Amino acid sequence: ESYKKQESAHPSDPYFAEPTRHPALQINSQKPFNAEPPVSILTDSYITPSAVFFKRNHLPVPRVVSETYKLEIEGLPGGAVSLTLSELKSRFPKHTVTATLQCAGNRRSDMNKVKQVKGLNWGIAAIGNATWSGARLRDVLLYYGFGPDVAAKARHVQFEGLDRDVTGTSYGASIPLNKAVSEEGDVLLAYEMNGEELPADHGYPVRVVAPGIVGARNVKWLGRIVVSDEESKSHWQQNDYKGFSPGTDWDTVDFKSAPAIQELPIQSAITHPAEGMSVDSNAGEVTVKGYAWSGGGREVLRVDVSVDGGNTWHVAKLRTSDEHNPALPPSPGRAWAWKLWEIDIPLPDKAQELQIVCKAVDSSYNVQPESSAPIWNLRGVLSNAWHRVKVKVSEDHKDN
Amino acid sequence: ESYKKQESAHPSDPYFAEPTRHPALQINSQKPFNAEPPVSILTDSYITPSAVFFKRNHLPVPRVVSETYKLEIEGLPGGAVSLTLSELKSRFPKHTVTATLQCAGNRRSDMNKVKQVKGLNWGIAAIGNATWSGARLRDVLLYYGFGPDVAAKARHVQFEGLDRDVTGTSYGASIPLNKAVSEEGDVLLAYEMNGEELPADHGYPVRVVAPGIVGARNVKWLGRIVVSDEESKSHWQQNDYKGFSPGTDWDTVDFKSAPAIQELPIQSAITHPAEGMSVDSNAGEVTVKGYAWSGGGREVLRVDVSVDGGNTWHVAKLRTSDEHNPALPPSPGRAWAWKLWEIDIPLPDKAQELQIVCKAVDSSYNVQPESSAPIWNLRGVLSNAWHRVKVKVSEDHKDN
Ligand SMILES: [Mo]
Ligand SMILES: [Mo]
Repeated sequence: ESYKKQESAHPSDPYFAEPTRHPALQINSQKPFNAEPPVSILTDSYITPSAVFFKRNHLPVPRVVSETYKLEIEGLPGGAVSLTLSELKSRFPKHTVTATLQCAGNRRSDMNKVKQVKGLNWGIAAIGNATWSGARLRDVLLYYGFGPDVAAKARHVQFEGLDRDVTGTSYGASIPLNKAVSEEGDVLLAYEMNGEELPADHGYPVRVVAPGIVGARNVKWLGRIVVSDEESKSHWQQNDYKGFSPGTDWDTVDFKSAPAIQELPIQSAITHPAEGMSVDSNAGEVTVKGYAWSGGGREVLRVDVSVDGGNTWHVAKLRTSDEHNPALPPSPGRAWAWKLWEIDIPLPDKAQELQIVCKAVDSSYNVQPESSAPIWNLRGVLSNAWHRVKVKVSEDHKDN
Repeated sequence: ESYKKQESAHPSDPYFAEPTRHPALQINSQKPFNAEPPVSILTDSYITPSAVFFKRNHLPVPRVVSETYKLEIEGLPGGAVSLTLSELKSRFPKHTVTATLQCAGNRRSDMNKVKQVKGLNWGIAAIGNATWSGARLRDVLLYYGFGPDVAAKARHVQFEGLDRDVTGTSYGASIPLNKAVSEEGDVLLAYEMNGEELPADHGYPVRVVAPGIVGARNVKWLGRIVVSDEESKSHWQQNDYKGFSPGTDWDTVDFKSAPAIQELPIQSAITHPAEGMSVDSNAGEVTVKGYAWSGGGREVLRVDVSVDGGNTWHVAKLRTSDEHNPALPPSPGRAWAWKLWEIDIPLPDKAQELQIVCKAVDSSYNVQPESSAPIWNLRGVLSNAWHRVKVKVSEDHKDN
């Protein structure tokens, strides 16, 4: 069910095991498959349906058979461990966390407008919010002997995917050990997304969900965990997914000079109205909607919205959970899920065009930067400037 | 020694117990005493000397006699505890943490240039970096019975100072419980600053040092600790030290709508050259220096410096510790101390004026906002826009 072979692909094609995908997805790359939902549906529900949750694959989707799946764990006392899927499910309590995942390249297209960067040209929808269920990584590591002796030497937890390139190299990444073992880190070895087994595109049968951390470290199709004094040696940890100064370009970049991205900065974007839409001047006001989220479990405190390019600001109403499943406020530092926001703003007198802008504030009172040029970086990651949408005001068009 | 009575004050004056202060301090308010060091000396040393460390008093300095000092602790099993200074020192291991404290109002003067705000007109020096030694708050709370039973109900740790207003109301503040009891929170009940007993202006004999948290919660002259399900009821927790939208002013503000500031956002500023200085065009370059720091233990990753108003950027060299006491790199989330930075930037051809700008990036890749207007707030707190300094380039003046 969650694994669907494309009938047309030949097994000699490394992409023979790709699942079928939702036709509404907007495809940035076919092989590996990378796609985001249309902006018009992104914030229709607080929980993003799995079928339209952004897909960010670095390599072909691996064909994993649950009956023979093994998760290997290294770097703990007693040597290597090998765990079946049913052992993972039965030996450890099942925890559920609602967490937003965002690609480091979300909104890269805004950065491309400043100066061309290298990477998939993501719009604003390489972000989604889901419920994830699985074993807590902390519980698994403690069960297999993690303790002060290991903590004295180790600093990182490395993850290796079962997805491989043509040379046999796996996707890999790591997170800091203290995030992995903290009681408040909520890192999962997830085997369910939105109440069902993980879809093939989201890591079936087991993936890492490290809430508050960039998507790239939430390794899918998890094959191996290594507790280590070193970060993952993978290309994606060492030579990608890092931020640089706008003054640094490919001729001068030293990837060792920047740390791997872990927590992401404050982010927000407008999902309604869309760029170029017309707003009815007779309505007297415009309804603006969007999402806001911050990394590291920092809660979104406030979203300011402007219809005059940022001269005057209005405070949006925040929605913190599924209407049907109201949630308790998150405890400090554990706000893993996005907030959806909405506001009706009076139309300025005689305005013929609106420059709608949003900017969010998180619980550390960090804010989004005003424009993309000062945060431009050669990989086009961390694109979190104020989001801007231009719409016309007219009496004729009534598509708001 | 650390407590020096001003001989001229009469005991009926609530300010009778004010200590003598360093003459170099720039005074923003005499009663209560609020002062910052001259910018020219702020980054002369990695550790800020106590005498010139910014003073931010809300009330008169209380006269506390160490022999009769008692620290009260409430909200733990077994009822109220009363602890002498020698008990605090002997019963709990002494820990030392190097931590930067910053006033929420640091750089308020930049915000005042946008539109008048309420508060002391701090420059860029309401920040300092010191070594603090004392008992860990966590150790004290655990010793007096903190455990899962308390954690199930409590959410905050309240602090009450021994400083009082004319009605007898004490200064007070609180921090989240998880910060207070975390092994990685490093919250101290400090009785030493820079290797000596606390000076009177910095909380003699005992103060809270909550690294990564706004200065206002680092309560001085600590008299009482209350573990509670509620935040401090004090004016400073409830109706002050909160951030609001630029669209919110005194006629519309609802202090309940924003959470109390705890962690501060990313900050940096230029300490050399000073505004209006002349740079020698024959030197061919200009040396720029400053500080950078972020709240929540987030490490400063990079400081970008521009001499052309932010069009082109150069990456500064960071200094992470005292040259004479090189420190290990901080573990993730525990970078409590500032970084000093320095860079030599070539003078642009034929430039007659330089617009020097700095902006820092922290380990969550949060950045400073470009200008103050979009973060303007009625109390003028959280002023962390790019810092800008204008200097002249000339052949005559050689004061660089
Ligand atoms: Mo990503
Ligand atoms: Mo402050």
